[in-house]
Amino acid sequence: MGAVTAATPWKQLLLSALESNSRLKHSTFFQLATVGSDGRPSNRTVVFRGFEENTGKIQINTDYRTRKIDELKQCPFAEICWYFTDSWEQFRINGRVDIIDGEHPDPLKLQLREKSWFASSTKSRLQYLGPNPGLPCLTEQPSLEFFVDPSSGPVASFCLLVFYPEQVDYLNLRSNQRMSFTLRRGVNGEDCWNSERINP
Amino acid sequence: MGAVTAATPWKQLLLSALESNSRLKHSTFFQLATVGSDGRPSNRTVVFRGFEENTGKIQINTDYRTRKIDELKQCPFAEICWYFTDSWEQFRINGRVDIIDGEHPDPLKLQLREKSWFASSTKSRLQYLGPNPGLPCLTEQPSLEFFVDPSSGPVASFCLLVFYPEQVDYLNLRSNQRMSFTLRRGVNGEDCWNSERINP
Repeated sequence: MGAVTAATPWKQLLLSALESNSRLKHSTFFQLATVGSDGRPSNRTVVFRGFEENTGKIQINTDYRTRKIDELKQCPFAEICWYFTDSWEQFRINGRVDIIDGEHPDPLKLQLREKSWFASSTKSRLQYLGPNPGLPCLTEQPSLEFFVDPSSGPVASFCLLVFYPEQVDYLNLRSNQRMSFTLRRGVNGEDCWNSERINP
Repeated sequence: MGAVTAATPWKQLLLSALESNSRLKHSTFFQLATVGSDGRPSNRTVVFRGFEENTGKIQINTDYRTRKIDELKQCPFAEICWYFTDSWEQFRINGRVDIIDGEHPDPLKLQLREKSWFASSTKSRLQYLGPNPGLPCLTEQPSLEFFVDPSSGPVASFCLLVFYPEQVDYLNLRSNQRMSFTLRRGVNGEDCWNSERINP
């Protein structure tokens, strides 16, 4: 029934969905669920910032001061729910998340963070200079005008999340087909994906 | 800074968002996060089936055989993330979920379940007769043609979830305003909502 493959079989499905929904700005938005410190689930919309080169790892930018950082430090697991409104496809992607802030010891990861900073618009970068997200608004005045030098590197609050998929549940509501993809460690230590058709 | 009110202040915001996005079929879809038995988060798209009459309780239909039922039995908390693609508004709603299946002891709850069954299309009702969702597909044949008598009551696998909001985080990406609403027990035991502007 199932098939085993070394490549990332669900990635092509996801790239096709991105392509066929590309006219919609929100097609790069998905919902990221984490577990809060109180053991309750937490869920918010975030923006897809591309795959880490030649892999199935999903990149997300976030502010280090948001609650999801504390949550991921306590429980590094997350589930993406990505619904494509034009093609009626849903991807549920379960996996582990790596937090890459400016203090990360790995210089290669710091490079990824820098790359993601420069890949985002200057308007996006400005958000990281605003007041602490989620805290009470202390002023009724419009927020101060901040300025970001376009050539300056990432600010301290800028954080890259790298999501490592381990399980993907794909549902096509038009064809009513559903597939499950599970990451397995191969006999030679390499990553293999097991895929299986499941009931919708 | 905060304001206290006995009504459900976020409900009007949600009704307005539903109204201004009503041309989009997917405006009634949202993502429901739960916590899995392995402690990992779980996240899927579900359909809004209306409020329980004159309350802020949110109704969702689901198949009793899906994994979310087991998850909610172990941890009854969930977070809705509802992003409105046309008006750029996000509601994150945290709360507790009641599972109402055909064995529920409360006759009033069973009535709600029956009402929700008859409110859904006969096509939706057919889904509950299909093979066990999420289990391997045992046949390559197209699924058998099922038939539902339109006047028959809910089948055993049909389940109503009633979501009790306790905390709502509202974000408007156009105006860049964010509000937090928190349920408090008033001095006379009645429900009160505390609302506060927070940083986006």
